Amino acid sequence: MSFPHRHLLGIEPLQPQDIQTILDTADGLKEILDRPIKKVPALRGKTVINLFYEASTRTRSSFEVAERVLSADSLSIATAASSVTKGETLLDTAKNLEAMNPDMVIMRHASSGAPHFLAQHCRFAVVNAGDGAHEHPTQALLDALTMRQRKGRLKGLRVAIVGDILHSRVARSNLWLLSKMGASVVLCGPPTLVPPGIEAMAPVTYRIDEAVEGADVVMMLRIQMERMSGGFFPTTREYHRHFGLTVERVGRAKKDVLVMHPGPMNRGVEIASEVADGPYSVILDQVTNGVAVRMAVLYLLLGGSAEAAS
Amino acid sequence: MSFPHRHLLGIEPLQPQDIQTILDTADGLKEILDRPIKKVPALRGKTVINLFYEASTRTRSSFEVAERVLSADSLSIATAASSVTKGETLLDTAKNLEAMNPDMVIMRHASSGAPHFLAQHCRFAVVNAGDGAHEHPTQALLDALTMRQRKGRLKGLRVAIVGDILHSRVARSNLWLLSKMGASVVLCGPPTLVPPGIEAMAPVTYRIDEAVEGADVVMMLRIQMERMSGGFFPTTREYHRHFGLTVERVGRAKKDVLVMHPGPMNRGVEIASEVADGPYSVILDQVTNGVAVRMAVLYLLLGGSAEAAS
Amino acid sequence: MSFPHRHLLGIEPLQPQDIQTILDTADGLKEILDRPIKKVPALRGKTVINLFYEASTRTRSSFEVAERVLSADSLSIATAASSVTKGETLLDTAKNLEAMNPDMVIMRHASSGAPHFLAQHCRFAVVNAGDGAHEHPTQALLDALTMRQRKGRLKGLRVAIVGDILHSRVARSNLWLLSKMGASVVLCGPPTLVPPGIEAMAPVTYRIDEAVEGADVVMMLRIQMERMSGGFFPTTREYHRHFGLTVERVGRAKKDVLVMHPGPMNRGVEIASEVADGPYSVILDQVTNGVAVRMAVLYLLLGGSAEAAS
Repeated sequence: MSFPHRHLLGIEPLQPQDIQTILDTADGLKEILDRPIKKVPALRGKTVINLFYEASTRTRSSFEVAERVLSADSLSIATAASSVTKGETLLDTAKNLEAMNPDMVIMRHASSGAPHFLAQHCRFAVVNAGDGAHEHPTQALLDALTMRQRKGRLKGLRVAIVGDILHSRVARSNLWLLSKMGASVVLCGPPTLVPPGIEAMAPVTYRIDEAVEGADVVMMLRIQMERMSGGFFPTTREYHRHFGLTVERVGRAKKDVLVMHPGPMNRGVEIASEVADGPYSVILDQVTNGVAVRMAVLYLLLGGSAEAAS
Repeated sequence: MSFPHRHLLGIEPLQPQDIQTILDTADGLKEILDRPIKKVPALRGKTVINLFYEASTRTRSSFEVAERVLSADSLSIATAASSVTKGETLLDTAKNLEAMNPDMVIMRHASSGAPHFLAQHCRFAVVNAGDGAHEHPTQALLDALTMRQRKGRLKGLRVAIVGDILHSRVARSNLWLLSKMGASVVLCGPPTLVPPGIEAMAPVTYRIDEAVEGADVVMMLRIQMERMSGGFFPTTREYHRHFGLTVERVGRAKKDVLVMHPGPMNRGVEIASEVADGPYSVILDQVTNGVAVRMAVLYLLLGGSAEAAS
Repeated sequence: MSFPHRHLLGIEPLQPQDIQTILDTADGLKEILDRPIKKVPALRGKTVINLFYEASTRTRSSFEVAERVLSADSLSIATAASSVTKGETLLDTAKNLEAMNPDMVIMRHASSGAPHFLAQHCRFAVVNAGDGAHEHPTQALLDALTMRQRKGRLKGLRVAIVGDILHSRVARSNLWLLSKMGASVVLCGPPTLVPPGIEAMAPVTYRIDEAVEGADVVMMLRIQMERMSGGFFPTTREYHRHFGLTVERVGRAKKDVLVMHPGPMNRGVEIASEVADGPYSVILDQVTNGVAVRMAVLYLLLGGSAEAAS
């Protein structure tokens, strides 16, 4: 399978065919994770740098597992220990990394567009692992893989995305992906947490019952506790009462609804524990698919040989 | 050699035969560490996650060396960078790790029972690398390996364990192991640092001279400086005078006594420098045996093939 | 190529022939970094511990890339997570590492002589990755490799080293190396940042125009912002005016001058952006050569087999 991009900077620049190629590749590679010996030589001798300017357990671990399974050599750089604290510009950091000849840099950064900046100025492949409130493409891809596995398709699905739409790169990447693949999205959150103008991309409601009504998929977003002090909403209790996904509210969706959450969850805030652990929850499938999608992205961008991945 | 357990959560649940299997395996694998090429493919393609909720150089490094020697793929997660700080429950963290399909999680945690909790709820093998004041099984195993190598046996040895018994998981695991293997243990520490009721398991004395008298092994515990402010004892100088192991006191033990310490040592507090560096000290043997014991545990729990470990 | 040293502690103890061996080896190994599969089995089964008591992105990453390319097993220990914080002596830390049988320890430490102390007391090979204001030998070697590649020789080159000479281990190692190889060095910096007595080793000027005049190489040192509060100089603006390398000042050097900087750079302070990015700048070559030099050092000290490195 050929892939026409050098980088994965976001979902927005992808064609539906590109998304399908990534999902198909992930489906094919996923089986490796169930083997007693979870290792293929596909990316032997390729150097991958994980450059995380924001703390992350789940995304970083997921990429690291994918790197090891594919036999890439990897190196992790976290903010605190980095030259950034010594006042170096991002471009100088990037050029320095480039001079060490890595094949790929996987970057998380608090500023929207930071990975694009790297991609413009450096030779290596860049994967965006989350940039500010902009995009988190591998998250949207793993979400899509999970939906496709369970529903057999993306086209025509009705997906409700509920929570802090304003600050969520997960929401943004999912909105792009689902629109491109022909799903219909409805956005829901408190008025203070829905960006003005977003109605141009998808219908918005401020009532969760309305959003969930008839949904094939309900995707809950994490409420970041630090928003509380920003005055975006009064208390977690209040938030749960108005926007938390309860068993009762799940009842308004389709019978075979999927409940998703990118994690880490605030149980009792954006999602009730009974829902998180309920039969419709595919939250842990999302995690497993995260490794598979990242394997696919590494593999497609680094041009691993097909034989070495089997 | 077959091993009938899925996890290593503590010494308490082990049978004497289990302990012997681990020690025999460690003895067999130890020789790999002296080779010019310290690497066997025994655990190729197995994924091990080192999940450390408490800082640790020596234990984490020891496990990491063992993992690399056996060719496992490993991943280290330390507290500060983890989702825990984002308010996720331990169960959710565990289930998320499980969804990435690791074969083993090695866990250090400040709460007693945290590794047991993981083992109950997850598919992967769990190794307890220290849980609160409860157990630190690989430490007791490396201590036992060291005694057995030097004395040829554990049965019948007289072992004095001296120091902060109250807060010590090392003391607790050693007490279990030595009792099971037929050694006789005497415990010694300031009254404030000996837990009430422990006399049911081993005799207690508050006088170090009495504890050391005729001992085959004297195992000194680290005094944690933070206990000072807790009022457990007045000053380090006072502590040394009453409970420090001096050359003079070592003289009361058997001629061929072994002096042990789990490290890191406070020289001049619980142990005099002359003793730490003396001919009876096997403190550095303990460190080497630590790598061998961890190799054995990884190997037995992950079912490595016998040929691949030779 | 045989190398008569067990350790790389500094440039001072090396003979010119040793320096040439390292540079020749680096030149030979560098080509591996351009291959599609950047991996040779030269150091398979060798264990290398990166022991960094000071934060470092570029040096640590460079060593880690070199380790992976040569297939060494490596382990990184950073200060914050280390037993040092538990009051252990450096010797005890070293002896504990030794007991785990590593083949090499790469050490950065704030105290001059710390790596020498390790080398005196331990069996493993030691590489100094920067000790206090004393030496940073791999930096001087990568600088020399860069000069030699561009100029075809070191002998007879006129090299100006400009900046904070007082606190710079980079300056010190370069001064040793260049003197041994027959280059002529001139040192330049504010009087408060030039150590008294250094004139015995190389001529000193306090005027950058004089230092740069007719130079083949101008090596700018990083100004550490924390020096500002020490009163070593008034403001960064003032510093730039008197000691910053501007396009105009570069004009005083030879036509084919090389401009070097060990990074991370303070653009607009010690070096103007136009100069850092100018045609005479070899700053990024230095970074690439850093990986090659570290590969050479690992290879020569760990006695990798010649066939396995091709």
